[in-house]
Amino acid sequence: MKDNILPIKGHQVILGSRPHGLPKENDFEIKEFQVERPKKGEILIETHYLSADPFQRMRLNSSSGYGKTINLGETIKGRIAGKVIISENPEFNIGDFVEGMLGWKTYAISDGSNSRAEYAPGITKIDLNKAPISAWLGILGFPGITAYFSLIETGKLKKGNTVVVSAAAGAVGSIVGQIAKISDCKVIGITGSERKVDYLINKLNFTYAINYTEGNISKKIKKFAPDGIDIFIDNTGGPIADEVYENLRLNARVVLVGNISQNNQKNEIQRRDLQNMIMRTRATVAGFIVYDFEKRADEAREKLSSWIKEKKIRYDQTLEFGIENAPKAFISMLNGGNIGKQLIRLPVSIKENT
Amino acid sequence: MKDNILPIKGHQVILGSRPHGLPKENDFEIKEFQVERPKKGEILIETHYLSADPFQRMRLNSSSGYGKTINLGETIKGRIAGKVIISENPEFNIGDFVEGMLGWKTYAISDGSNSRAEYAPGITKIDLNKAPISAWLGILGFPGITAYFSLIETGKLKKGNTVVVSAAAGAVGSIVGQIAKISDCKVIGITGSERKVDYLINKLNFTYAINYTEGNISKKIKKFAPDGIDIFIDNTGGPIADEVYENLRLNARVVLVGNISQNNQKNEIQRRDLQNMIMRTRATVAGFIVYDFEKRADEAREKLSSWIKEKKIRYDQTLEFGIENAPKAFISMLNGGNIGKQLIRLPVSIKENT
Repeated sequence: MKDNILPIKGHQVILGSRPHGLPKENDFEIKEFQVERPKKGEILIETHYLSADPFQRMRLNSSSGYGKTINLGETIKGRIAGKVIISENPEFNIGDFVEGMLGWKTYAISDGSNSRAEYAPGITKIDLNKAPISAWLGILGFPGITAYFSLIETGKLKKGNTVVVSAAAGAVGSIVGQIAKISDCKVIGITGSERKVDYLINKLNFTYAINYTEGNISKKIKKFAPDGIDIFIDNTGGPIADEVYENLRLNARVVLVGNISQNNQKNEIQRRDLQNMIMRTRATVAGFIVYDFEKRADEAREKLSSWIKEKKIRYDQTLEFGIENAPKAFISMLNGGNIGKQLIRLPVSIKENT
Repeated sequence: MKDNILPIKGHQVILGSRPHGLPKENDFEIKEFQVERPKKGEILIETHYLSADPFQRMRLNSSSGYGKTINLGETIKGRIAGKVIISENPEFNIGDFVEGMLGWKTYAISDGSNSRAEYAPGITKIDLNKAPISAWLGILGFPGITAYFSLIETGKLKKGNTVVVSAAAGAVGSIVGQIAKISDCKVIGITGSERKVDYLINKLNFTYAINYTEGNISKKIKKFAPDGIDIFIDNTGGPIADEVYENLRLNARVVLVGNISQNNQKNEIQRRDLQNMIMRTRATVAGFIVYDFEKRADEAREKLSSWIKEKKIRYDQTLEFGIENAPKAFISMLNGGNIGKQLIRLPVSIKENT
């Protein structure tokens, strides 16, 4: 065995075949690999959690919406959180917890940098005083930071606004709605089941929730917000979004955060022509990508962790177990099977309070 | 004859039948009316020009995009410019020239106010030192004010930007492109004929012009602006616009000024889903209606008239003659038959230097 190889076997999820429409489990393969020894400046991370996020679906297309596409045979791009078990980098100690876009692997090497190549930011040190490790992939990770800046900065949140959020029970939507409630806003969540409607109203304290599978989205919004809406945080795109646009109020702000309803479509989908609605209301529709706010991530984390401590905000998780079940968890998340953040918990050698 | 009736017959254009798709001449009727004597506070205007503008098409639909729909038998909503021939309002003298949204009539009464009911601003006094009367329906009227604020304010024009404008040879587009050129920008105009391509390049000094009837709009923009575009002033919407979106650069601004390609369609048209393109580029798409800038109209007029005096900007007109030909002129304008501002010149009793 060569010097640079450790006597540990890792597993990774690779792209076996390119999905059209909703991925199937056998589009993915689990592949063993020999774990390498970190070089000078590098660290070896034992993965505790894989994160399943909607942006990953885009990367599976031959032409990705943004970021690099994943080639066949390549590791699935994805965020992980784990523990440093070997450190050749003075910035990191063994036992530190970190998270980063290191790919879906049970062990990962990082140079510890914070640089971002093609929207793949370097690793972030986890502060367990703020929240447990898993929360750093959710409310204190990119979903929470997305929720915070999309609503407050791009959406220009003002006290008393009426806010609509789609995929409202998901990792981003559930935080968006709670921040809006903290800011004395009326919040209407759009979600895909009665169970999630109940969750939004009774657990997250949303003002209203709509089950889109029952139709009449526009009419229901009109009933809940007869004067129209000020902000729409759009995580889904597609026909659900089209109905929300009908309720825009003068100078409304639409923030395009995700297009998950369309990313699973086999063919390019046509949409309603929203131009006259946007003109009439002088609305602003703005594209949002969280990496533009990367340098301000700690600002969002401070605020969110203080709300957690004050019990003003909660974060829920849907857990799957074992890397072999990561594709299943990912597909379930794309199908709206999750409440809160979808994570995959990996068995780790030494149990920690994580 | 009653006291309040003058011994003058006027003519007006009324809506005879509601058009589906492109209007036909016989959707309109010319109807005689007896001209009334202005009451205290009012003025009587002899119309010199009728203005044909794209927004009027929307008003012909049973459900208008914005503003009130025109009912069957009602006068066509439209701007006119003319001379005060009777004044019962101390603010106006006989012989003053004014313009306003008074409807397509050969004589019109106004209370002289500047109030705006349902986006129908009151009348504006014309200053012939700035430009001739007809220019107050074009470059110094709402088309010019639209061009100015859509580009400079909503479009956030910066020196050196690359600007695309559709319906580029029209009343708004031709001014947009020239303002951008004055501001040291690269300007790409999209228009519908070789004659208009020639006009844009050789008369208006656009950097590039594209004849959309030849297809490959996106490819041509990519050739002219390999690094993408910063601003898109969209007067047409529809498939032309969809191709422009493919060339948006990071943080591009799209200003939705008109949707003329869609207003003549018989059925609601589906469009490409632009969401991923907007997200990827973090573009901002903003609806624009000129009435939001009404209070700042003089600011635009000052700037535009000084550019006229310095011969930095030109304004062209396409003239039709006689109110009976107004429907024909309107349809021609909707079909892209005009270069610059489409106007209808009316014969007037006493010839003036207008």
